[in-house]
Amino acid sequence: MVNIIHRVGIKAPLQKVYEAVASTEGISGWWTKDTTGKPGLGQSIIVRFHSPEGREIGSMEMEVSTPENHKVHWKILSGPQEWIGTEVTFDLHQEEDYTIVIFGHKNWREEVEFKAHCSMKWAIFMLSLKQLVETGKGKPSPGDIKIDNWN
Amino acid sequence: MVNIIHRVGIKAPLQKVYEAVASTEGISGWWTKDTTGKPGLGQSIIVRFHSPEGREIGSMEMEVSTPENHKVHWKILSGPQEWIGTEVTFDLHQEEDYTIVIFGHKNWREEVEFKAHCSMKWAIFMLSLKQLVETGKGKPSPGDIKIDNWN
Repeated sequence: MVNIIHRVGIKAPLQKVYEAVASTEGISGWWTKDTTGKPGLGQSIIVRFHSPEGREIGSMEMEVSTPENHKVHWKILSGPQEWIGTEVTFDLHQEEDYTIVIFGHKNWREEVEFKAHCSMKWAIFMLSLKQLVETGKGKPSPGDIKIDNWN
Repeated sequence: MVNIIHRVGIKAPLQKVYEAVASTEGISGWWTKDTTGKPGLGQSIIVRFHSPEGREIGSMEMEVSTPENHKVHWKILSGPQEWIGTEVTFDLHQEEDYTIVIFGHKNWREEVEFKAHCSMKWAIFMLSLKQLVETGKGKPSPGDIKIDNWN
């Protein structure tokens, strides 16, 4: 099983973190500004990424659901070929004054270089999520930190 | 196989990146200031981490070698129990004006929460490595970005 798993701790109530990963508005505050659609089974959220110059560099469509308390699940419906069949998960729990996020991007078919790029980018976006919830201001695309020649 | 793999691109000649991951002085510029010892087979480099208040929060000893051209290998000799038997690898190649680093921390026995923490911290340190090589100033411990209640 080829997975990306990151742990991040956010100094905020769990409910605030939950809303940031399970709602259209929340996601637009840390992942990409161009986030539209609706969460829920049978619905979908569409995210589009643009270069700082405004060129579209990628998009994904996903079904956002909450299979259990404190768990948020994104099922990838369309996007980069390597992402099809993968799932993105957020497992939340509280430790003292932190909400701990166990972030997963799971079930990649192969250990490809694009996965290594996404691993690094997800860490950058987890920092952005932490900043959004703790300070009110994240760094969603196209204002995200660039980490290599791909993005 | 439980691995952490990140891809980062650094706008600098390959040799500069190589020196930053294969030498004592280089490592002290992006991972932890308290780096001593020598690289090479049969030698070891020791890294110690301190809290911002000066308390030691961890240390590792490793053999740093270069099994092939453009590859740097850290064999973990001592450190956190979960790190024993793991290896850290840096595979470098050039793409246009970037040196691409495929960073690996490989052969974890289990998908433990500590590994998810390390995955996030390694991404932070890859950013620090990128900053060091591109600007001359990284963010080694204890000046590293904190990402959760563990560090």
